[in-house]
Amino acid sequence: MYFGACYYPEHWPEERWEKDAKLMYEARFNVIRLAEFAWGKLEPSEGEFDFSWLDRAMNVMRQYGIKFVLGTPTAGPPKWLMDRYDAYQRDLNGQVRGFGTRKHYCMNHPDFHRCTERIVTQMAQHYGALTDVLGWQIDNEFGVCDTARCYCDHCLQAFKVWLQQKYDTIDAVNEAWGTVFSSQMYRSWDELHLPTYSVHPHHSPGLAIDYRRFASDSIVDYQRLQLQILRKYAPSHLITTNTMGKFNQLDHYDLNKELDLCALDVYPNMKSDPKARPSYMAEQLDITRGFKGGQNFWITEHQSGSPGAVVLYPTPVPGEIRRWTYQSIAHGADAIMYFRFRTLPYSIENLWHGILQHHGEPGRKFEEVKQIGQELEQLAPLLAGTSPQAKVAMIRCFDNEWSLELQPHMEGYEYIKHFETYYNYFYDRGITVDIVSPEASFGHYELLVAPNLMMAKDETVQSLYRYVEEGGCLIMDFRSGAKEMSNQITQKRLPGAFRDLLGIGIEDYGIIEASQQIGMRDLKSGEVSAAKKWYEVIDILDLDSAAQPIAVYTDGYYRDTPAATRRAHGKGCAVYIGTAPDQDGLYRLLDQLVEETRVKTDFAHLPDGVEAVIRKEAGAGGRELLFIINHSFSEVSVPLSSGYRDVWTNQAVSGPIELAAQDIRVLLLSS
Amino acid sequence: MYFGACYYPEHWPEERWEKDAKLMYEARFNVIRLAEFAWGKLEPSEGEFDFSWLDRAMNVMRQYGIKFVLGTPTAGPPKWLMDRYDAYQRDLNGQVRGFGTRKHYCMNHPDFHRCTERIVTQMAQHYGALTDVLGWQIDNEFGVCDTARCYCDHCLQAFKVWLQQKYDTIDAVNEAWGTVFSSQMYRSWDELHLPTYSVHPHHSPGLAIDYRRFASDSIVDYQRLQLQILRKYAPSHLITTNTMGKFNQLDHYDLNKELDLCALDVYPNMKSDPKARPSYMAEQLDITRGFKGGQNFWITEHQSGSPGAVVLYPTPVPGEIRRWTYQSIAHGADAIMYFRFRTLPYSIENLWHGILQHHGEPGRKFEEVKQIGQELEQLAPLLAGTSPQAKVAMIRCFDNEWSLELQPHMEGYEYIKHFETYYNYFYDRGITVDIVSPEASFGHYELLVAPNLMMAKDETVQSLYRYVEEGGCLIMDFRSGAKEMSNQITQKRLPGAFRDLLGIGIEDYGIIEASQQIGMRDLKSGEVSAAKKWYEVIDILDLDSAAQPIAVYTDGYYRDTPAATRRAHGKGCAVYIGTAPDQDGLYRLLDQLVEETRVKTDFAHLPDGVEAVIRKEAGAGGRELLFIINHSFSEVSVPLSSGYRDVWTNQAVSGPIELAAQDIRVLLLSS
Amino acid sequence: MYFGACYYPEHWPEERWEKDAKLMYEARFNVIRLAEFAWGKLEPSEGEFDFSWLDRAMNVMRQYGIKFVLGTPTAGPPKWLMDRYDAYQRDLNGQVRGFGTRKHYCMNHPDFHRCTERIVTQMAQHYGALTDVLGWQIDNEFGVCDTARCYCDHCLQAFKVWLQQKYDTIDAVNEAWGTVFSSQMYRSWDELHLPTYSVHPHHSPGLAIDYRRFASDSIVDYQRLQLQILRKYAPSHLITTNTMGKFNQLDHYDLNKELDLCALDVYPNMKSDPKARPSYMAEQLDITRGFKGGQNFWITEHQSGSPGAVVLYPTPVPGEIRRWTYQSIAHGADAIMYFRFRTLPYSIENLWHGILQHHGEPGRKFEEVKQIGQELEQLAPLLAGTSPQAKVAMIRCFDNEWSLELQPHMEGYEYIKHFETYYNYFYDRGITVDIVSPEASFGHYELLVAPNLMMAKDETVQSLYRYVEEGGCLIMDFRSGAKEMSNQITQKRLPGAFRDLLGIGIEDYGIIEASQQIGMRDLKSGEVSAAKKWYEVIDILDLDSAAQPIAVYTDGYYRDTPAATRRAHGKGCAVYIGTAPDQDGLYRLLDQLVEETRVKTDFAHLPDGVEAVIRKEAGAGGRELLFIINHSFSEVSVPLSSGYRDVWTNQAVSGPIELAAQDIRVLLLSS
Repeated sequence: MYFGACYYPEHWPEERWEKDAKLMYEARFNVIRLAEFAWGKLEPSEGEFDFSWLDRAMNVMRQYGIKFVLGTPTAGPPKWLMDRYDAYQRDLNGQVRGFGTRKHYCMNHPDFHRCTERIVTQMAQHYGALTDVLGWQIDNEFGVCDTARCYCDHCLQAFKVWLQQKYDTIDAVNEAWGTVFSSQMYRSWDELHLPTYSVHPHHSPGLAIDYRRFASDSIVDYQRLQLQILRKYAPSHLITTNTMGKFNQLDHYDLNKELDLCALDVYPNMKSDPKARPSYMAEQLDITRGFKGGQNFWITEHQSGSPGAVVLYPTPVPGEIRRWTYQSIAHGADAIMYFRFRTLPYSIENLWHGILQHHGEPGRKFEEVKQIGQELEQLAPLLAGTSPQAKVAMIRCFDNEWSLELQPHMEGYEYIKHFETYYNYFYDRGITVDIVSPEASFGHYELLVAPNLMMAKDETVQSLYRYVEEGGCLIMDFRSGAKEMSNQITQKRLPGAFRDLLGIGIEDYGIIEASQQIGMRDLKSGEVSAAKKWYEVIDILDLDSAAQPIAVYTDGYYRDTPAATRRAHGKGCAVYIGTAPDQDGLYRLLDQLVEETRVKTDFAHLPDGVEAVIRKEAGAGGRELLFIINHSFSEVSVPLSSGYRDVWTNQAVSGPIELAAQDIRVLLLSS
Repeated sequence: MYFGACYYPEHWPEERWEKDAKLMYEARFNVIRLAEFAWGKLEPSEGEFDFSWLDRAMNVMRQYGIKFVLGTPTAGPPKWLMDRYDAYQRDLNGQVRGFGTRKHYCMNHPDFHRCTERIVTQMAQHYGALTDVLGWQIDNEFGVCDTARCYCDHCLQAFKVWLQQKYDTIDAVNEAWGTVFSSQMYRSWDELHLPTYSVHPHHSPGLAIDYRRFASDSIVDYQRLQLQILRKYAPSHLITTNTMGKFNQLDHYDLNKELDLCALDVYPNMKSDPKARPSYMAEQLDITRGFKGGQNFWITEHQSGSPGAVVLYPTPVPGEIRRWTYQSIAHGADAIMYFRFRTLPYSIENLWHGILQHHGEPGRKFEEVKQIGQELEQLAPLLAGTSPQAKVAMIRCFDNEWSLELQPHMEGYEYIKHFETYYNYFYDRGITVDIVSPEASFGHYELLVAPNLMMAKDETVQSLYRYVEEGGCLIMDFRSGAKEMSNQITQKRLPGAFRDLLGIGIEDYGIIEASQQIGMRDLKSGEVSAAKKWYEVIDILDLDSAAQPIAVYTDGYYRDTPAATRRAHGKGCAVYIGTAPDQDGLYRLLDQLVEETRVKTDFAHLPDGVEAVIRKEAGAGGRELLFIINHSFSEVSVPLSSGYRDVWTNQAVSGPIELAAQDIRVLLLSS
Repeated sequence: MYFGACYYPEHWPEERWEKDAKLMYEARFNVIRLAEFAWGKLEPSEGEFDFSWLDRAMNVMRQYGIKFVLGTPTAGPPKWLMDRYDAYQRDLNGQVRGFGTRKHYCMNHPDFHRCTERIVTQMAQHYGALTDVLGWQIDNEFGVCDTARCYCDHCLQAFKVWLQQKYDTIDAVNEAWGTVFSSQMYRSWDELHLPTYSVHPHHSPGLAIDYRRFASDSIVDYQRLQLQILRKYAPSHLITTNTMGKFNQLDHYDLNKELDLCALDVYPNMKSDPKARPSYMAEQLDITRGFKGGQNFWITEHQSGSPGAVVLYPTPVPGEIRRWTYQSIAHGADAIMYFRFRTLPYSIENLWHGILQHHGEPGRKFEEVKQIGQELEQLAPLLAGTSPQAKVAMIRCFDNEWSLELQPHMEGYEYIKHFETYYNYFYDRGITVDIVSPEASFGHYELLVAPNLMMAKDETVQSLYRYVEEGGCLIMDFRSGAKEMSNQITQKRLPGAFRDLLGIGIEDYGIIEASQQIGMRDLKSGEVSAAKKWYEVIDILDLDSAAQPIAVYTDGYYRDTPAATRRAHGKGCAVYIGTAPDQDGLYRLLDQLVEETRVKTDFAHLPDGVEAVIRKEAGAGGRELLFIINHSFSEVSVPLSSGYRDVWTNQAVSGPIELAAQDIRVLLLSS
């Protein structure tokens, strides 16, 4: 378990460093993240390098047992570089995104690539052999501040190359994008353009999705440029990059594939609805764990004060840092680095508060962090080797998210919000969920939810058929199979590739207007809830094992037709929901499905605001730790079966346990 | 009666064409619209033409009795053209509106003119002699996507020429625009500029309105360029262009003047309020009929599925396509072309649904269209020669609409919304309305409403005086006569040129704030309703036939002064309303005025959602068809005098008739 | 007392001038403002001057006893100038702000400076010796329409010079702005840039505030350019410029320092909430009086009709012009110039109504102005030498306003709105307030409020300590002392420089979310009100004279800790409020503090909508005039002690007096 903070020695007088190191030591820190953004201090002029200040800072720290995660400094390219090579991004109006903040570089700029290679090589050569460097973070928050997509000439050239590799001929591009519409055909590669400002706000869905894919690949390629250098000179160091949970401007499965582990930046208080913060953060953590198929991850930045640039988000109340810290650990974090050790007096981050206030003396947040440090000393050995284990998975697919961002179909629809209607069900029922790529293997899950899987590669389709045949319970919903990977709408009858699996046909569909009241009756309970946003008129296909309606519409011209169906197939079943039920309706459906499976939970009836998560060693009889977190500000009583031991008091715990407001209990299952 | 669809052979495999033709034949189609947007397929490289594919497609179609409306393809100029000549529009920030959609060309670009002449000449020469080409549509939806106004250098040059023709000298421009204000004078034509981005968001009203007029004229000129070629090579073909009802970025009276007939694109479901769709569509249809003084028109695109680009509008429910189709016909449509025959899988229109879904097989919408086709076979001979006949007219004037768009006077005011407060009255009372140009002849109308006629040419003023003198009842309202055609405010006492006609003076006026409650008492009934948005303090002039107050304000410093007046003059009367009454107040006033005139209706008390419209042959004893359309989703009973015969059952109909939800009855008055 | 209007002879036919002069004479006018914006008429081509038309106009006017305030015409540079020198401003996207309105020039453009010097020199030489020119207005409303800040290359160069003068070395700039953050360091002056469009919407607070200061200084410098010429050629004329009350894009203390007197443009009806207009206008007037330390001022433009460009603001009702006029005078206006004499038919100001409507004949507004003219003849001699005298002052500081505009800390926070929560208290209690610079001398005030004084120069800090020591009562509130003048956050413990004065420490703080309910209990009354927006956790320091809590929080983790404190120090006291109380809470606190001081008022319990203001001669026994203004539309009864005489009837007045709706009473205290 790593425990520490982000620390920027270049921001503080050298004579201060030792005091900070002592405070860290006092708080049981064993790691700091540093040097990302320090390009200008490391290479003050082109080709002139200065690592001496960083070496001195690290020397001070290592005397107190602190180890290092080094950031490559490429997120903060200095002015001399940006100006000399005009490496600035262009926005979709062609406007230069000028100097003054960060991340303003074009990912496809050849000179920027060259400069990147030079600084990363220098750093890697300098630090690659050190044993107290745990690892590296490449760049910082790829895509933040809407920087994932640039519209400059370098990007246009790179896009052409990308398309040539994908399509070979310009005619294949024309075919895929359907440029015959409105005479948009390209006669040659020269005529290609980026999806920039035009008469209509929207470009062809084909062009638009390919540009998103290209931009994502550009980031992955740019990361690989750095990765290869680090692998060469720092072969024993771990390599990661920090990500932002739901952020969707790049495909994070691709981004994390070649890294050693994933990392997340955790800022719960940036979520505006206070009630929603616990489930929101749980989701970010589960998303991150899913970027590398369920592997534990690092928290590279963790809220330790009120975040904010020009307005502040809420200040963590006493006990709140501790609460979020344990939530992160419960969901699979093996390192916690608070952002930042001390609040900066200057720059646009001078309201982004850290552990120490601006004056630099320890206060209540420091004391809280210190307490956590002490607790973790005891907990760390038990945590080693454990991770969350899920019987349920949800597919989050960037291709579909992009496609639905480009054409959301319904006013106010967002892929991730729809995704969350399912996620929140499992969160509320205390059921751990893996959030996985459509290319993951699903065999070990009891239940698999694939929201709005409009497009899917053949392998994914086959994998889903196989999943059901072999006994899985698959839940799909509206628009499944409606698109090709090209972002064209399928010319097959709906639901396209999933027609046979689901045993249904869909000829007719449309939006449910906000002013309309369309009911949906659950056939098991007879209860009626609301169908929202979208309807599909479902025909049951005449198959050997025919689908059965499990809910019907109670209004509209499609009244009494199925709103949801369930088809037994092979050893498993395939469920289809043709609308977006309201929360009551969705929970009712899912409760029935969960009941049928071996997905069960002791925690389906937790008090409001209480979260329960299990980390386990793999394999039967592995160590199992239960985290109970009271996110509420009231005392709660949590029902519990016997057989647990409190990891800190080492006392047996049984029966209902009382938790104070915001308190945490970590319990070891007696083996 | 023409009945068919928009069909794009270039979007589908050639081997599919025959199947489509057969389906069309099955649905009784006799026309398709095609080839607009196909420039890139017709002229793949500059000066190289290929009509062979279109010829082959037309050959397939004509075997099934289908005739053609050919679109000139200029709304979709290909990339080679746009790039070679930089024919792109500039927006008011000078930003190029790039490739990727359509309509991005500058209307005043000399090379674009040359290219237009070439392609239209080629097409006209190729198809001009064909007898199964019914006609041509020039370009597509002029001005759509905010393309009516371009701010490039070509437009600046063209604007100077336009101004020179209008004003002769730069001093006359200075005079008309009042450039002496803030030292904005131009010493020479060189100093002229377009109303582009500046310090203040608004330019001089004089410059701004002239730029709108110029831009409108540019479109009319560009259309004429094509029209002259078509007249030359296709002298026996009808020529039209498709328009968009309320769309106001160009003067549609000018646009339609030289065409053979008007055309409208009908998408009722794009109106957000479902309750308002029937009256909204009725208004669009009546507006279109007014573009050429009451002449019947074509529907070049008619909703046949859910429209939508990135979000869908509502899907037509069963029976809905039929309902809108008959509404269009009732209001004067002599051709219905559904948009589109089959839904496209690609491009930004892949959610703009047509008769067939993406998979291309007939479904419920096809069946509904087929039913209409059968019904129309019976109805068509009766329709021939009939058209709606109105006793009421409303003036819609683009000069005033533009002037009030530039200076709406009141927060939230829109000319067309104010216009609709009157229009909706007549719609609700079952009274057919013609919507006419201020230059129309008014003599045959019983009642004439001229909302917010701030500026009017001398001829219009004289025409309105004459109208009243000869027995018409004219309704004018606030700000009438307040402006000169230059968009300067008049220096005459208000209401300017209409002072003598109305017999009133206005010295004082202002907005009614949303927070204010100002009442208006109708003097006949004594009922009080609310005066909204604007007040004028009206003095009764001491004339031979003095105006009489018909309503007074009940609040404000102008309490007890007239809010509306009526003056008998000649054989007619002139009514003035100094405020915007709420619906109750306006309907009460209009009911009284309608009662005085020979405007009467049998349908003043129709059930909610039911529309009744008459199409008649001109002349006494002409054939008269009554359309009763139930726009509601309930069964209704409609009172009816006897003497009708159902056109489809051929049975006599009398007494109240029952209509199912969404049903239509077309009745022939027994002669 | 000067009384008149803004008049633009160049807008009207020369033969009209005499009629206007006669009307002015009839209304007792003795002054007009003219010639601002007339550059193009005065210098029709570069270097060619024509004052003849203006001379003729002035000749007509002076025959009727009218004197002149001449505007330098630089707010309306003609097209020939703007085009020849490309003197246009650039916005922060680098976009040229083109011709067509006004004020589009760059304040730092060398050629524009040269052209300015030439026209001002010509005017000053021509008119500088005239005795009926009372004074000059330089340019017009500096900064209006967001023109205070330009982002062109001239500004970049000028900014570098400004920074060199302030910081000497580029390293000092780096230090002050904290550019080490994210490698934003400048190696040389060449690398400097303006805070233009970038990836992140916000630049470093250091750069951002310095650019605001620089832009403000640029305007002051540009004004000085003109001022020096006027001083030279018109040494006996008064010089002013017209300002806009709360407008904050430049430092108005700096702007007015070198002028002879301040001037304000008064448009009450542009304030959207009708109820708030009286206090809003009072505040603007008091702000203006504060620009030169309490000195009387001129109203260079005064609403005399409905203002408006594209939509109208409310038309003044009968009596309203008179009401606002007396409010202006009561607060210190020594000149009233109505805007405008006659409403213009053309230009974007053709809905900006003046005394005469467009037709130019006298109407109700003219009659009202004439009545005021007659009344003022009687009042003027009594007014001479009097001015408002305040015992309370509030500090309005542009540095803090800018800093909090850049980083408002809280959603929806605005410095001036927070300022107004205090101002409105004093307005409601009938207590006259001076609004002063942080560099003013405070000694003569009983009570001093310094809202959100985050940063303060050392002299201000010392001055505030001294103020309290010598007996003043100082009220400070949250974030006081939190910043350095560089806009860095202090590294001292909070409240920074004010820690010892206030006797408190602040370690912890944060926003109060809109969804939170945090109470604040007043310890004297025990009443609970709401704490809003921000909280600070206040520790009482262990000092000789310890601070005392006067209110505590009733909720949150800081429940029962002080929300406000009061510390006796020297002969005075220092109060601190750590949150933004709701109106009840704030009024309760302030009532207690006012009670303790010698600030008292006879008018604490005025009827709703009634304002009472005193103008006095300085010194004991000086003449004292009491203005009672009924802003309401009801009759009111105002309690009054005896000893007054009505200035118009010359009758003694005592006991409660009755005022009609909107009526005014001016009373002379019997000496």
